[in-house]
Amino acid sequence: MSYFSDVSNICWFLEAEFAREVVRLHKVVGNAVTEGRHIVVGTGSSQLFLAALYALSPNDAPEPISVVCASPYYSSYPSMTDHLKSGLYKWGGDAESFDKEGPYIELVTSPNNPDGHVRRSKVNRSQGFLVHDLAYYWPQYTPISAPADHDLTLFTVSKSPGHAGMRIGWALVKNEEVAKKMTKFIELNTIGVSKDSQLRAAKVLRAVSDSWEQGNSNEGESFFKFSHKLMAKRWKQLRLVVERGGLFSLPKFSPAFCTFFNQVLEPQPAFVWLKCEGNVEDCESFLRGHNILTRSGIHFGVSPKYVRISMLDTDENFNHFLDRLSGIQS
Amino acid sequence: MSYFSDVSNICWFLEAEFAREVVRLHKVVGNAVTEGRHIVVGTGSSQLFLAALYALSPNDAPEPISVVCASPYYSSYPSMTDHLKSGLYKWGGDAESFDKEGPYIELVTSPNNPDGHVRRSKVNRSQGFLVHDLAYYWPQYTPISAPADHDLTLFTVSKSPGHAGMRIGWALVKNEEVAKKMTKFIELNTIGVSKDSQLRAAKVLRAVSDSWEQGNSNEGESFFKFSHKLMAKRWKQLRLVVERGGLFSLPKFSPAFCTFFNQVLEPQPAFVWLKCEGNVEDCESFLRGHNILTRSGIHFGVSPKYVRISMLDTDENFNHFLDRLSGIQS
Repeated sequence: MSYFSDVSNICWFLEAEFAREVVRLHKVVGNAVTEGRHIVVGTGSSQLFLAALYALSPNDAPEPISVVCASPYYSSYPSMTDHLKSGLYKWGGDAESFDKEGPYIELVTSPNNPDGHVRRSKVNRSQGFLVHDLAYYWPQYTPISAPADHDLTLFTVSKSPGHAGMRIGWALVKNEEVAKKMTKFIELNTIGVSKDSQLRAAKVLRAVSDSWEQGNSNEGESFFKFSHKLMAKRWKQLRLVVERGGLFSLPKFSPAFCTFFNQVLEPQPAFVWLKCEGNVEDCESFLRGHNILTRSGIHFGVSPKYVRISMLDTDENFNHFLDRLSGIQS
Repeated sequence: MSYFSDVSNICWFLEAEFAREVVRLHKVVGNAVTEGRHIVVGTGSSQLFLAALYALSPNDAPEPISVVCASPYYSSYPSMTDHLKSGLYKWGGDAESFDKEGPYIELVTSPNNPDGHVRRSKVNRSQGFLVHDLAYYWPQYTPISAPADHDLTLFTVSKSPGHAGMRIGWALVKNEEVAKKMTKFIELNTIGVSKDSQLRAAKVLRAVSDSWEQGNSNEGESFFKFSHKLMAKRWKQLRLVVERGGLFSLPKFSPAFCTFFNQVLEPQPAFVWLKCEGNVEDCESFLRGHNILTRSGIHFGVSPKYVRISMLDTDENFNHFLDRLSGIQS
């Protein structure tokens, strides 16, 4: 036994306990391959996103590596990438129009935030590193088609059971050196990840897995059935309101077979990606005029005719939203 | 009432609850002025250190601002500052030899990690921003001379009650714009700070304040009396072992009046800053040969004749350390 002078040896067993629950939940849901993966726990998937940029950037390159994503993209990607003016990486914009030679990092968010569509990489060149952000690849939001099997995949407790305030995410990482470099980043950034949050997150994931495995016993409904039903109900209500008038339109999704629920189902994303039809050019301002606060398409790299709205707020707020939207249409 | 599309409105009352306990504890201990300060909560003081660099760096400067600290300095400062090759700030080395013109950021750690000495700023020029890291300015480690009254001061739950695994720190910030920019950094870095940890940290700080205010009632000893006694005992044991031989030496501290305990007391830092006397040039290697793992002085910007060792490990580990050190001396 040796005498340690460092804080880094505190409670590693907690990381292991959380990682065990992550593996179990992925096996229950069938949404990601965990075999042969290192699990890196982070302070939410935001920290893991930054850790991935740090780990994948070549250390000795003459210029920063480009970070790209097809538009519409998560509105925080550009500012998270560029706020420290890093010499390692730099926001490169829309993946569709990216034509620079050499290495690059492409972010693939699937289903996509903000528009809910299933995605694959767009650039498809040999020197690309892919980061798959699968925060919303859970059965309450989208049909599970197959276990995701990528080099580096991000998930978060914020969107799976929905506990955003815990700030706990995880990455499934194939390459050991990349996983180690991500852990190094977390150490330099926040030394480690809250043990209180990890302990509670492990219990929450366990409860979600348990609720499914116990099936529809007398104990009550599984978490995924409950949340799937709630999302289905909200989307149905929203579609009714939107389709009543011609002012707005919604994305069109194709139903697909869900291996988890074992039936053909429609996507029902965590966000509405609403388009103002007709003459309204600035949809955010227009809706603000009716007391509906949204996020404009310009933050996501596209036209201000689009806005993003959460489908995950409280029942009370969601009903206010529907009432106001309905009021505009009539 | 408006309908929000963002996650940023989750549980702000928790930040307020934690901040209330911070103010109360500083009033109980008398170690920092909180009047006219904004309290920024972070994922440990590490995240707040990075947030401070981001907030204090001029955004449009032709070159990165220099970040300096007098040696021996906290070994993580250089790598935390430089790991992303930021265009905003850059490690500038030892504050004692810093002679560049223009703005700079100086880190003042007091009592200092690693050597335990009380410190003031060294550069003392007009264009400097000061960040005071007062993680160890608590009565169990050092006499409290007066309430600290600086522009930007960092504290952490990791060192005050000693709950490092929570990853909760706080900054007392005079300038509102700086506080806002620090909060912006935290949003870009981890979106927010674990609510689970903040809730528990608030309860722990409250327990510490309560234990002091209830005095030496039948309920038991106050936290600070207990921890001060424990540190005093360990330092006494260590001094006995070190003074028995001529192989090692310890820093010399002057006793000072502690306004909290209302008596003259000796500093008893959280780290030993041990020097190998005589012919041993590499103290870390020498001690490793005797199964004592330490951190070499070279990481703190000074000679390898010095090493840093924690005084805060478990009783069992601390006793192993004393036994092994004693074994070398005999």
